[in-house]
Amino acid sequence: MSISPPATGVSAAGLGEVLALFRAQSGLTRADVMQQTGLSRSTVNQRLDALLAAQLVIPSGEGSPTGGRPASRFTFHRDRGVLLVADVGATGMRTALCDLRGEVRSEQERPMDVAAGPEPVLEAAHEMFRALLAAAGRSAADVHGIGIDVPGPVDFDSGRVISPPIMSGWDRYDIRGWFASRYGCPVLVDKDVNAMAFGEHRSIHPGVRQLLMLKVGTGVGAGMIIGGEVYRGADGAAGDIGHIQVAVDDAESEPVCRCGNTGCVEAYAGGWALVRDLRAAGRDVATVDDAVTLIRTGDLAAVRLARRAGRILGHAIADSVSLFNPRVIVIGGQLARIEEQLFAGIREMVYRRSLPLATRNLQIVATKLDTRSGLIGLALLLADGIFAPGRVEELLARG
Amino acid sequence: MSISPPATGVSAAGLGEVLALFRAQSGLTRADVMQQTGLSRSTVNQRLDALLAAQLVIPSGEGSPTGGRPASRFTFHRDRGVLLVADVGATGMRTALCDLRGEVRSEQERPMDVAAGPEPVLEAAHEMFRALLAAAGRSAADVHGIGIDVPGPVDFDSGRVISPPIMSGWDRYDIRGWFASRYGCPVLVDKDVNAMAFGEHRSIHPGVRQLLMLKVGTGVGAGMIIGGEVYRGADGAAGDIGHIQVAVDDAESEPVCRCGNTGCVEAYAGGWALVRDLRAAGRDVATVDDAVTLIRTGDLAAVRLARRAGRILGHAIADSVSLFNPRVIVIGGQLARIEEQLFAGIREMVYRRSLPLATRNLQIVATKLDTRSGLIGLALLLADGIFAPGRVEELLARG
Repeated sequence: MSISPPATGVSAAGLGEVLALFRAQSGLTRADVMQQTGLSRSTVNQRLDALLAAQLVIPSGEGSPTGGRPASRFTFHRDRGVLLVADVGATGMRTALCDLRGEVRSEQERPMDVAAGPEPVLEAAHEMFRALLAAAGRSAADVHGIGIDVPGPVDFDSGRVISPPIMSGWDRYDIRGWFASRYGCPVLVDKDVNAMAFGEHRSIHPGVRQLLMLKVGTGVGAGMIIGGEVYRGADGAAGDIGHIQVAVDDAESEPVCRCGNTGCVEAYAGGWALVRDLRAAGRDVATVDDAVTLIRTGDLAAVRLARRAGRILGHAIADSVSLFNPRVIVIGGQLARIEEQLFAGIREMVYRRSLPLATRNLQIVATKLDTRSGLIGLALLLADGIFAPGRVEELLARG
Repeated sequence: MSISPPATGVSAAGLGEVLALFRAQSGLTRADVMQQTGLSRSTVNQRLDALLAAQLVIPSGEGSPTGGRPASRFTFHRDRGVLLVADVGATGMRTALCDLRGEVRSEQERPMDVAAGPEPVLEAAHEMFRALLAAAGRSAADVHGIGIDVPGPVDFDSGRVISPPIMSGWDRYDIRGWFASRYGCPVLVDKDVNAMAFGEHRSIHPGVRQLLMLKVGTGVGAGMIIGGEVYRGADGAAGDIGHIQVAVDDAESEPVCRCGNTGCVEAYAGGWALVRDLRAAGRDVATVDDAVTLIRTGDLAAVRLARRAGRILGHAIADSVSLFNPRVIVIGGQLARIEEQLFAGIREMVYRRSLPLATRNLQIVATKLDTRSGLIGLALLLADGIFAPGRVEELLARG
């Protein structure tokens, strides 16, 4: 029940490709489908009949007459069922119930410590899912797919977290299996920054083919969009920008990172590192939100640390620009709320270090979805995964 | 006449998709094409007739009888014309004449200084092309495409070099236009490391979807394969690994790079930097080849510098592994010939710095194509570009 891209190749439009047309456009006629696929009338009829029988497509009125009688129009049945998604952060969780297009219909939020381990966190998600279903008058049988993202490296093929630096007790835990055994539907497990990148791409920058999403929250991570899809790398480990090593001129000694190495970006510029440094400077801060608040009040030591964090993030982003050459960089996470203090340092380093060819059209922007990009992106990723061409037959077999 | 990927979408197999089948498989029958595309017999006949009329496909005998008479078989006509490619390095150029599959049939090599500027270098390539054509009994009218790669950043869409650090006089020079006006055929211009990455991918690692090709020659650069294709980034600037900044513990002062910045990987570990440091240590070396020879003789200062270069390259490769998570890293360029001295340092840094998830299946290998990966890859890239689905109609229109 893994959700992975189907094999590509030269083939006629199958059931999944025909469904994809209805997912992309409302109110298509049989003639529209014939024209866009090149399929014969009888094949189109056959595929449409299968989609109608499965209620994945429903009639949506009639169009203008093309001869004797008006042509029937058809539309993707977005309310045939629901999707459930959980965006798990270091200190809180958001869950949502979505339609089959991946649009959020209702959501819940709750504080939670990811370091409590998988069982209590997944139980909490399950409980929130039940509440969302009940409020919507839906049952577990209506759930077509479940998506969950976590703040750690995920082996995308197996749906397991692998050696996560901050998620104690989660190593190799079978998250997919936990939900699959309870709901009997496809389960997508991904890294939070991948969902965030996809959410920003689809909702705010749909025309951008190369996008880097930098999350600066408690930790630092990145998600990448290449060619309109999430790029995960060979093992799902791509985008691990928080643990690349930076050369810092004014460091007395290299701080030790949560990952065990020294000199990591995150060990200087992550939210937890700012909290550490502010406390060392005698400020009364306990959380990343406290640090953000203090920086926004203009506390001098806090602003100085924030600007330094910006330059250090800028080093790492400059490296990413040199290697990956994105068109847009979106900065999110709690520290994106101190945009003014962070962005100057980031831009300074990127324009100083990267090739002119790579920066002449580069945009560096703050998230417009604030902390909801992960939830929004996860639902869209899940919808794409479930209805990917080549997977629709599987969905129909489940009924 | 730019060579860019065609738009994708849901559509029936067109002329280009049908040609793609013949490029991938020899001796197909009409029934094979119908089965693999889902197209009707009449459409297959129509497309095959067009390809036969254009001599892009030719009869290749008969198969076993499927009823009354044996089925005719057809094959891509690889000798309908030729491709010409030029792999331009900092100090030399290789050119080749290839068949339409992109397989090298004959080649020439000549020393040359890329800093002499575009006119003499392109004239030299043109002269070598004429000699290759004459030797093969071909004329300019037989040339279906020209490919050229250069050791600098290329704006892939316009076919121009942009702000190249080592190619004086080439900035914004219209390489594509220069050849297009002489041959009237499509011209592909790319960065050398992209061609090398594609050559290694197709020839040695065809099943690998994420490959990083590191070239350590006079300079340091990288090419990336993602999903079986060259990844160029938003502007063609991706893979600029030579100018990311590394933290070097034992540096007395950060050396100035050829790009004008300080602390670049290339300023420590590029061939030119090794030559500089060996001369400073009193060794009699003039070229990168001299440095390689000295290192291989076991000269202590030279070996020490080579090991240090390995660790510095390792820093940059570890960053690339963290961001890009490739399955295979191929190391080429002249310095790959000192594999023993370089690789230990590279592996040390990668395994120390990158996530276990990213390194557990990672292979780091030396090139098996030696200095020919660029030429081989460029010809294969060019063949794919010319015969890409959506471009075949253009080819036929030219006749």
